[in-house]
Order: sequence, then structure tokens, then C-alpha cells
Amino acid sequence: MIVVMKPDHTQEELRDLLARIEKMGLRTHVSKGERRTIIGVIGDRALIQEVPFTSFSGVEAAHPILQPYKLVSREFKEEDTVVRIGDHVELGGKAIPIIAGPCAVEGREVLDEIADALHGLGVPMLRGGAFKPRTSPYSFQGLGELALKYMSDVRERTGMPIVTEVMDPRDLLLVHKYADVLQIGTRNMQNFRLLTEVGQVDKPVILKRGMSATIKEFLMSAEYIVSHGNEKVILCERGIRTFESETRNTLDLSAVPLLKKLTHLPVIVDPSHALGRTDLIPAMSCAAVAAGADGLMLEVHVRPQEALSDGAQSLTPQAMADLLQKLEPVARAVGRSILRTDGDSTRNRSKAVGEEA
Amino acid sequence: MIVVMKPDHTQEELRDLLARIEKMGLRTHVSKGERRTIIGVIGDRALIQEVPFTSFSGVEAAHPILQPYKLVSREFKEEDTVVRIGDHVELGGKAIPIIAGPCAVEGREVLDEIADALHGLGVPMLRGGAFKPRTSPYSFQGLGELALKYMSDVRERTGMPIVTEVMDPRDLLLVHKYADVLQIGTRNMQNFRLLTEVGQVDKPVILKRGMSATIKEFLMSAEYIVSHGNEKVILCERGIRTFESETRNTLDLSAVPLLKKLTHLPVIVDPSHALGRTDLIPAMSCAAVAAGADGLMLEVHVRPQEALSDGAQSLTPQAMADLLQKLEPVARAVGRSILRTDGDSTRNRSKAVGEEA
Amino acid sequence: MIVVMKPDHTQEELRDLLARIEKMGLRTHVSKGERRTIIGVIGDRALIQEVPFTSFSGVEAAHPILQPYKLVSREFKEEDTVVRIGDHVELGGKAIPIIAGPCAVEGREVLDEIADALHGLGVPMLRGGAFKPRTSPYSFQGLGELALKYMSDVRERTGMPIVTEVMDPRDLLLVHKYADVLQIGTRNMQNFRLLTEVGQVDKPVILKRGMSATIKEFLMSAEYIVSHGNEKVILCERGIRTFESETRNTLDLSAVPLLKKLTHLPVIVDPSHALGRTDLIPAMSCAAVAAGADGLMLEVHVRPQEALSDGAQSLTPQAMADLLQKLEPVARAVGRSILRTDGDSTRNRSKAVGEEA
Amino acid sequence: MIVVMKPDHTQEELRDLLARIEKMGLRTHVSKGERRTIIGVIGDRALIQEVPFTSFSGVEAAHPILQPYKLVSREFKEEDTVVRIGDHVELGGKAIPIIAGPCAVEGREVLDEIADALHGLGVPMLRGGAFKPRTSPYSFQGLGELALKYMSDVRERTGMPIVTEVMDPRDLLLVHKYADVLQIGTRNMQNFRLLTEVGQVDKPVILKRGMSATIKEFLMSAEYIVSHGNEKVILCERGIRTFESETRNTLDLSAVPLLKKLTHLPVIVDPSHALGRTDLIPAMSCAAVAAGADGLMLEVHVRPQEALSDGAQSLTPQAMADLLQKLEPVARAVGRSILRTDGDSTRNRSKAVGEEA
Repeated sequence: MIVVMKPDHTQEELRDLLARIEKMGLRTHVSKGERRTIIGVIGDRALIQEVPFTSFSGVEAAHPILQPYKLVSREFKEEDTVVRIGDHVELGGKAIPIIAGPCAVEGREVLDEIADALHGLGVPMLRGGAFKPRTSPYSFQGLGELALKYMSDVRERTGMPIVTEVMDPRDLLLVHKYADVLQIGTRNMQNFRLLTEVGQVDKPVILKRGMSATIKEFLMSAEYIVSHGNEKVILCERGIRTFESETRNTLDLSAVPLLKKLTHLPVIVDPSHALGRTDLIPAMSCAAVAAGADGLMLEVHVRPQEALSDGAQSLTPQAMADLLQKLEPVARAVGRSILRTDGDSTRNRSKAVGEEA
Repeated sequence: MIVVMKPDHTQEELRDLLARIEKMGLRTHVSKGERRTIIGVIGDRALIQEVPFTSFSGVEAAHPILQPYKLVSREFKEEDTVVRIGDHVELGGKAIPIIAGPCAVEGREVLDEIADALHGLGVPMLRGGAFKPRTSPYSFQGLGELALKYMSDVRERTGMPIVTEVMDPRDLLLVHKYADVLQIGTRNMQNFRLLTEVGQVDKPVILKRGMSATIKEFLMSAEYIVSHGNEKVILCERGIRTFESETRNTLDLSAVPLLKKLTHLPVIVDPSHALGRTDLIPAMSCAAVAAGADGLMLEVHVRPQEALSDGAQSLTPQAMADLLQKLEPVARAVGRSILRTDGDSTRNRSKAVGEEA
Repeated sequence: MIVVMKPDHTQEELRDLLARIEKMGLRTHVSKGERRTIIGVIGDRALIQEVPFTSFSGVEAAHPILQPYKLVSREFKEEDTVVRIGDHVELGGKAIPIIAGPCAVEGREVLDEIADALHGLGVPMLRGGAFKPRTSPYSFQGLGELALKYMSDVRERTGMPIVTEVMDPRDLLLVHKYADVLQIGTRNMQNFRLLTEVGQVDKPVILKRGMSATIKEFLMSAEYIVSHGNEKVILCERGIRTFESETRNTLDLSAVPLLKKLTHLPVIVDPSHALGRTDLIPAMSCAAVAAGADGLMLEVHVRPQEALSDGAQSLTPQAMADLLQKLEPVARAVGRSILRTDGDSTRNRSKAVGEEA
Repeated sequence: MIVVMKPDHTQEELRDLLARIEKMGLRTHVSKGERRTIIGVIGDRALIQEVPFTSFSGVEAAHPILQPYKLVSREFKEEDTVVRIGDHVELGGKAIPIIAGPCAVEGREVLDEIADALHGLGVPMLRGGAFKPRTSPYSFQGLGELALKYMSDVRERTGMPIVTEVMDPRDLLLVHKYADVLQIGTRNMQNFRLLTEVGQVDKPVILKRGMSATIKEFLMSAEYIVSHGNEKVILCERGIRTFESETRNTLDLSAVPLLKKLTHLPVIVDPSHALGRTDLIPAMSCAAVAAGADGLMLEVHVRPQEALSDGAQSLTPQAMADLLQKLEPVARAVGRSILRTDGDSTRNRSKAVGEEA
């Protein structure tokens, strides 16, 4: 059972309710977000049904949800969640935004080149790693705050909202200062402390599926974020680990319609990390859109062969342009469109965005 | 190295060539198909290059192929293979045929109901199991020849070519007598004896990917068939086994563009077995077409809840009709179409097909 | 429900029983083995319980078994099955036999060398491939009957019972003529026709686990064999396919105690195919014995680097001798022993074995 | 190339060296541990070989290591690393310590009961979760510092060193204050920031293998810790995720001899989490010791059915006692022993330990 407290409930009301529930031998878990306090009530189902939750003062609603994930489930909320990003992008609606950029921000010039090319193509959002989770301690670990600054300068100039990964609760303030969207990487999908932290901020979060996470575990991790008060969660399928070695991972596209059925949250797909090679990206991007994806995340680099990481899976801007041509009719075929921004007007709008940040 | 003999080579020419190759310390493997004799030459690469294969009489061509699969590779043949099925269906061309029908043929009446519904929708091909590989010895194992007869009666009436599985070399003659397309099931993908046998007949073969087969192993199994003389092989992705349990298997759609790159053979997708549940089939069928599939294989039953096997994954005819509506714009978006037959004209054509069989 | 008929039941008794069961709306599956006829009764559980099976004449017993595997389950038979092989080997008892030999029989001389070395070490059983399931049609496919002859000559000389794979129902008579134990390879674990055939012969069968088979599927395949009348089934864990690539497969040793709990059949382990490299074989053989394995299957070759297949995982006779030294104290630690034969006495016994074959 | 600086090198020496390396177009990664500074030099192999590293002042050694993991590899250090824990336990030597205790510390009394039972059996180390990574935000998350206090009181009384998980860099100081051994859980194996942090403390670390981590990735994560200065890393195999669902995970025991070959670090096994059920634990614990494990980690609870987490896999003290009886002969069979402490003498020694903590 999920009990949602009214926004203006008092501490006393909460204390009374908890005391009453615990007196019945049930366990409670209180998630206090910035905006909402939620109580998970756990224990014998028959006992739970005896508690008249909604008759307590301070209680807004009580949801008897069978799934272990509650707030993210379609049972809890039927209509699709649409996440607003920056001033001009919506994710989860009819128009499908593409998030593109380099794996890691390697320097100001190369980032600018990439971003300008993408902006010229009307790609609405920029991704780029500032803090990079690298398998080896001897590999390039990212430029850190410098990368964040370069990215926010791009936003200033182009109006593109920026997406970047946060790896450590201790970096959250810093990343939050610059980014429009926080990304939780595949290796941190079950870093529950980090999930709890991003659950307490007011920016959208892209949560990548762990490379061997089940759909249920994936939704439970989203539940961590939402139960702490941040409802702007975007799920990202990015390939799972299997025995097949021709592709880096196996893109589990059926996760898209499955997630859309189980949750109201938007679902995007990252074919670059799933496949680890560019030649299959166009076909699988089209397939992702046909399967119902609400967005795509793609690695783009102006000189993939020089990239410090993930060059093998980075599209050139030209390949990105060709892909956009292919995606549009597929999006239309499933009743949607590919979100494209217009250079000029965006530049104007970018100021507003810049000021906000 | 793959040495292809001329169709009219003599036994003496073959003997001479083999003697010469083996004298050099190389090993040979001769595949004699009904129409083509092929010699695989294995051993030290430098030695192989010294042999002037094409100067031997009886030799048509010699192919130095690096991949372990030779005849099925794009290196060996650049253009797409298009497989002709019956008189009116082509698989591997622009128009995408759908192969639909029940998991198992359970009786004449229910088969007729299903087939008529599919025929009414313009679905060009009928699938149905006569010999069923069942995990339990106590489960329904198929009606055997009776099922084949019922299916060929449907073909007589509707003109739909029929696809059915062959599980045992000893059934091959029987199945061959009735079927238009032989299917090798996922559990038999590495039943090399069966592959060798279907390599020696003149009917198209749908080869399903083993549930834990790598792409390379899949192609090696196709190579078994082609190297024995039967070039009409259709590859079918049907899901691989992973840790995820929300779907029966994980549909590896990236196998489609990957296979299309590595081989000239057509590639189809079976979402029904991959997913094991109907709710995800529409989205994943659209995705398969967007990814470049040359055909779809779908389970359809008039009363799924009564099916003796695989009811949970069988579409109703109505769901199939809805799916066709969805598939057509997606096919157009990628420059293709969904192959639909017309009831009346097909009936006329069906006689011809019937006479042939 | 599993209904076991008396050995001397009449056709009439069977017909009557089936008619009665089917009249109730239940389905039946009759497995007629050489020695036993078994009826699987499937359908509504409440209905099944109403049928007074044991009061029908001709019925020996009726077993309401919840597991989908019936005859192989511990529920059906509590005590361990011990399989007698040849005149002198028992598998499933306290003494643990080792089955060793080359992957493929490559020629008489090399086989004799290997076998003599093994015999000298007291290894009680010889394995060797005559028909080889090879991923590539261009690879060495085995010497066929010639290999069987060489192996039976070894048995004549040494008394070692021989184990060899049968891949095709059509080879069964031939293999049966020479072999003491028939092996079903990993790729054929769900070749249900082949299972049905080996279920009808009177020789022990080693059934290898499919490389992505669940424990339940493994037991269902054993059930195919036993339900057709052959109770001498030996299960062999040989590694499952996972993402890990340092070893060829992942040896799932927990399958040993798990199977010993679920079934009365003996369980052996093949570390050679699981690991694909010799360096880990000693440790994992010790681990297998400690986990409760009833036997080990190991690849041994006198010159591994020259082996036509699987050289990388073949132990030398010296390594085999060292391994035996290590295994003995581990076997004793778990209350068992390693079965060793004595050269001289075995030679005498070998005649008897030879005459039988 | 790994360049190890002398303990007393100056900042100037380091700067000079880095400047020289970078001038050649090579990249460097400096890991400054408390006791050792290490430089990873990355780039063109030919270029690297030209640099006369050891002739620079301040450089102790330069290791051209081919594996991506350097400091943890057997190439780097041939002899086994033995980790000292508390005053009386060594892990990595002949005597095999067992680390046992509840999944989570649930309260003082139940912990005391468990610990006293274990201490009475001579189990040398206590495990218990204070901060619990739970899939659901509504599950019991651990008692936090309270649990750490209860555990350190146990140590005070019994002398048992305590092992507990750290999930968040921000908890490290707190956990470090109480624990003798820090545990990094499976979900944090690639939480590189956390690895970096525990690489900078002076306590042993048990690093659990990620549930879908390859052996190479596992070693790279250990390299993170060691390259930051903490050499006391203990690797723990705890099962990998596969398709098999009869066990919670698949215990990959071959990881034990494989790791022992590739690295000098000690390797322990956690059968409780791998199997998720108690019935297979005795057999697999014996197998782990036979495979060469340097330690075992086991969940023990006085009343498993009441445990707030992982009850299904917790042994009772009686089952633990029985297991010890089984393990001892297996350990002797492979030339080792099971480390047992003696109640009385340990109590005396515990004071020393208590004072230190």
C-alpha cells in the first residue's frame, strides 16, 4: 500500500498515522521528497486492508498497488508523463527529441564543432560526458567542471539543453548547477544513494537501464527517484549483456513497448552504447522509433577516429543528417514526428535559457 | 578457400584435384549437393595460395574467404538472394510477406477457420506445426501427416504456400511431399545431420536461430545447408535466451541489420516466439520491419485461449488485421511494402500450385 | 498423473483405460517403451483425481506428480539410480568413475596410444567421437564406423567400456552395435526424436545439458528417454552459455547438488567442454567431486597440439595422472573414492565384455 | 606501462617526468595513494618503449604490462598476497577463514545471539549489513550507525573482526571508524568513485564481483583500488546472472582458479548470495574450497524465517556447525585447513583488537 500525504500535512499528522500503522504490526517506509511525503506500508495484506488510511487527516490518497513499483506504475497514473526540458523541449509527447553529442567532452573546440553541426541539423539536445565512468583507472576520466562549462557555453549560444552524467552524490550540486538533465549511467542504476539524491532535485533525470537489470529492477530504481519527490524520470534502454559478441550489448527493444505498458514514464533508446558500432545504428534507430521510443540518444563526433572514448560507435554529423532523413518517415508512420529546432529562433530563445541556468 | 566445381565436372576431374590438394598437406571437405559440388580447402594459408585451383579442369571458381562461413557470405555473393516460394511469393524483395497460422495444426476445422481468416486478410503464406518439438514427452506432439494433409488442402483451396517444421531426417520425404517451405526449429539449428539433409532438397528452408546461438554459429548452420546444394535458405531471428523473464526470450532485432550485412540470404523475424505474449507483438513487428526484416512469422489462432500450445502468444485474426494496418505505413517509410494477396485471383492460381505439389 | 501399465498388460486393457480417460475430457499421451507402457494423463486436476486408475486391470501404479518431470523425479523414486556399465563399472555409487579419451577418434594408432595410457592409469572408461557435431561443414566430421571399430578393439584389448555420441536416429543401430554407452550431445538435448529413440534401447545414455537449457528442461529431456523405457540415463553438466568469455562456457556446478536433489539419476561433470582450457581443469574437477558429482568426463590426448578438435582443452596422460592424485583425497573427504581398474585383471575381464558386444 | 615512483620522490621529480612523457605525445594518469604514486603511461607502444623511465630520478620501477590490469596482475607480483585482518586473522594463506553473520543487522539482541553462536563454533569473522542496498525504496534499508555500534560491541566481546558494506563515499569515514574490513557490494563494483575512495584508506576491502561483470572488468575494478594505494583487496565471487532461475544467480566457481592464475590477490566465495537457497550451500561450499577459495562468506541467522532480508539463504548455527564438519576434510584434501578460533584465547585477544579500533 502506498499512502500519499497532502502537501500541507503536519508532522503530527504523519507521526500519528505512522504510530497507528506500526501498532498493527505493519512496517512503514517514509520517503520525504521536497514536494511530497509518501509512506510505503509493508506487511500482511489482510492487515493492511483493515487500516482506514484515507480517513486520517493529512492523507491525500492510498493506493493498493500489487506491483512492487508503485508511483511509476500505470496503475498509479494512467496518462503518459511528459517531461519538460529547458524552455522548448518536451519528452514523452508526439514529437520525438534526439539527444546527441560526444561520449566525453574532450575540449572546447571539438565540442563546439560537434554542437554547431548538431544545432545546424536541428537536433534539439546536446549530450556530453564531464565525469566518465571508465573501466580502467588509467583511462581518460573526463574534464569535470571544465566540460560542464564548455557545455553550458554551447547552451548559451545555441539554446540546446544539456544532458550529462552524475556519478557521485558529492558532484550533484556541481552538475546540477550546469546541466538541464542529469543522467544516471548503467553502472549506477542500482547506486541507491545516488538515486535518492537525484530524487530530491528539481531537474529531469535520464535513468539508464543496468546492463543486466531486469525490467522490474529498472522500474524499482525509477521508483527510488520518484518516491523521493522527483517525478521527471526518463527511462533509457541501452542494451543488455548477453552471450552475443558481434554487438557490444544486445539492444532489448521489446523493453520499449513493455515499459510503456507498465509505467507512465517516457522511454528513450540509446543505440550507440547498445551496439558499439555505427553500421547498425540507422536501422536500429528506425526500429526504436517504430517500437514506440519517446526519444533517441546518439553519440556523434566530428572525427570519431580521434575520440578519446567510444569512437567506434560515434556517428559523424553527415551520418546523423542521413539518419534524420530516415527517421522522419518512420516517425510519421507511427503517428509521431522527429523534433527539429530551427537555428535562428533557437538562438534567440537560448538567451532566456542561458539566463535561467 | 572454397572451390566450386562446374556442374558438368567428371569424377576423374574431382579425384585429380583432391589428390593434388591433399598431396600438399592440405585437408579437403567435399560437399556434394544435387546441383553443385564444393570443396572446402583447409590448412596453412600460404600453402593454399600456391595451388592454381582455377587452372584445373572441372573447376568453376575459387574463393579465398576469410569468414568461416563462405557460400552464405556477402563476400561470396554481393546481391540479395530472393527466394521464390510457390508461384506467387518472393521473399527477400521489396514486398514483405507475412507467414501466419497456428503453432500446431490441431484439427481440420480450426485450421480451415484460421486459414480462411488469414486468406481473407490477404496474408500470403500459412504456417502450422505437424511435428511439434515439445519440452515434455506428455504434451501434444502434433498430428503428423494428418496435419500436413489438412494444410495441403488449405493450399489447394486458397493458394497459400505452406510452411511446416521438419524435426527428423526420417520425416523429410514425407514433409517434403506436402510443404512448400521446410522449417528447421530453434532446437535443431545445430542438428547438423538434419541441416545436411535439407541441404539436399529443392525446397526453401526457414532456419530458425538457436536460442543461444551466436550470429556466427547461425551463419555456419546456414552454410551447412547451402554447402550441400540448397541455396534457398531464409534466416529467422526468434529471440535469444537471456536473464530477462518478462518476455519469453529477448528479441535480438539488431541481428536483422547485422545479418543483412554479413550474408546475402533473406532474414525474417518471429516476434511470437521471441515475446511469448501478444501485447508486445504489434510494436515489435513494426520495429522488425523498420529494422529491415524481409518477412514476419506470426502465430494466429481463432481462439487463442483454446490452443493446445502457445495460446498466450497467438493473435486473433482481428488483431492480425489491425497489425497489418500498422505495418503498411512503416514498410512504406523504409521503402518497402507488405505483400498482400487478393482472395479471388489467388484461388485461381492455387490450382496451379496444387498441381505442382 | 502418470499411469504405469503392468509389463503383461493386454492391448484391450490399454484401450479400455484410454477410452475411459478420454471420455472424461482428459488428454492422454502413451509412451510405449520396450519394457514399459506409460500413460501421461493431462487436463483438469480435479477431473484427474476422480479417475480410479489403479482399479483398472492392467494398471500397475498411478503417480500424481506435481513436477512436470515425473519418472526421473525423486518424488517418483527416492533411492539413487546406479547405472551398470559393461561388466565392471557402476556409475552412481560410492566409487566415482572417470571417462576419458580424445574428443574425436582420429586414427587407430593415436587412439591406441591414448587408451593404453589411460588404461595404465586405471581409468575405467574410454570416450571418443566417431560422429562429430561440428559448427562448420568444412571441419573434420569424425571417422564414423571406422572409429567405432577402433574403439571396440580397444575394449577387446583393455576391457574399457566405450562411450560415443549418436547424432542421428539413423545411426543408432550402428552406434548401438559398438558402444557401451550412448552419448547425446549438448546440441541434441532437445532433439526429441533422438531422445525417443535412445529411450527404446537397452544401453545407458549420457545426456549432456544443452548449453542454454534450464535445469527443468534438462530433466524434461531425461524424462523423454525414461518415459520410453530406458531408465539408464546419466545426466552430464558441461557448462552453460553466459557473457563471460575467459572460459568457453560457464561450468554451473551448482547444477550437481540441485539435480541430485530433484532426480534419482546419476550426475556427472565434463569440465573439458565447460572450460575449454586445461589450466582450470584440475581445480574444477576437484570442485565437481566435492560438489557431489558421480563421475567425470575428461578429454585426454597424447599430443593435444595435434588434435583435430578441442586440443586446447585436452589433458596429456601425465596431466591426467597428476589429476588422479589430486582427486583421490577430495573424493575421500566427501566419503567416496575414485574408481580405478587394474590393468591385468581387466584384460581378463575384457574378453567377457568383448564377447557381449 | 606502469611507472612506480619511489616512496620519497619529490614533486619536482614527478613534474619533470610527466612533462617529459607528455612531450612525447603520450598520455599519463597519476594515481597518488597514501604510500605510493603510480603513473600509467598510455599511448603508442613504440613511443613508450623509447622513454628511459628508470633513469629518471625518483622512479623506482617501470613495468611493461600487457594486461589492462597492472598492479593486481600476477605479472606484477608473483607471490600470493596475504591480507591481515585484525590481530589474528590472515586471508590468503593456508588456513581458510569463514566470514559469517546476518545479511542485515536487525537489532542488538539478535545480532548478539548470532555472533555468540558463531564465536562458539570458532568462526573467526563476523559480517553484517548496516547500510543495505535494497532493490525497493520501501524495503528495510539497514540500521546505519546503530548497526555498526552493535557490531563493534560484538568485536569487543568476542574479538571477531567485523565486515560491513559501504555504499556511499559520504559514509566512508563512519564505516571506517567501526569496521575491520570494508565491503563493496556487487551493485557498486563499478562505482568508480567509491573504489577510488576505498583505495585511499588503510583497511582491507572485500570487492564483490558485479553480477554481470566479466573477470577482466572485475580485475579492473580491483585495479582502481590498488592503484590508489590500498593493496589489501580481497576478491569475492558471488554468482553471475544467467538464464537459469532455479538458483538466484549462477555461482561461477571457475572464477576461483582463473582469478588465482591472473592475480596475486586472495579470492573468496559467497555461496549464500549466489544460490539464494540453503539446501545447496553445503555442497557448493565444499566445492569452493576444493576449487581453491581462500575464504567463504556465509549468511547465518538464528531464525532465518524471521530475517528482514535474505532469510531463504541463511543457515542456522546448527547448519553452520554441520557445514564446518564437512569443510574440514575437504580443506585438508587440498592441503589447507579451516581457520577456527578458540573462545577463551580470543576473548583475551579481543581486548587488543577493541583498543585498536
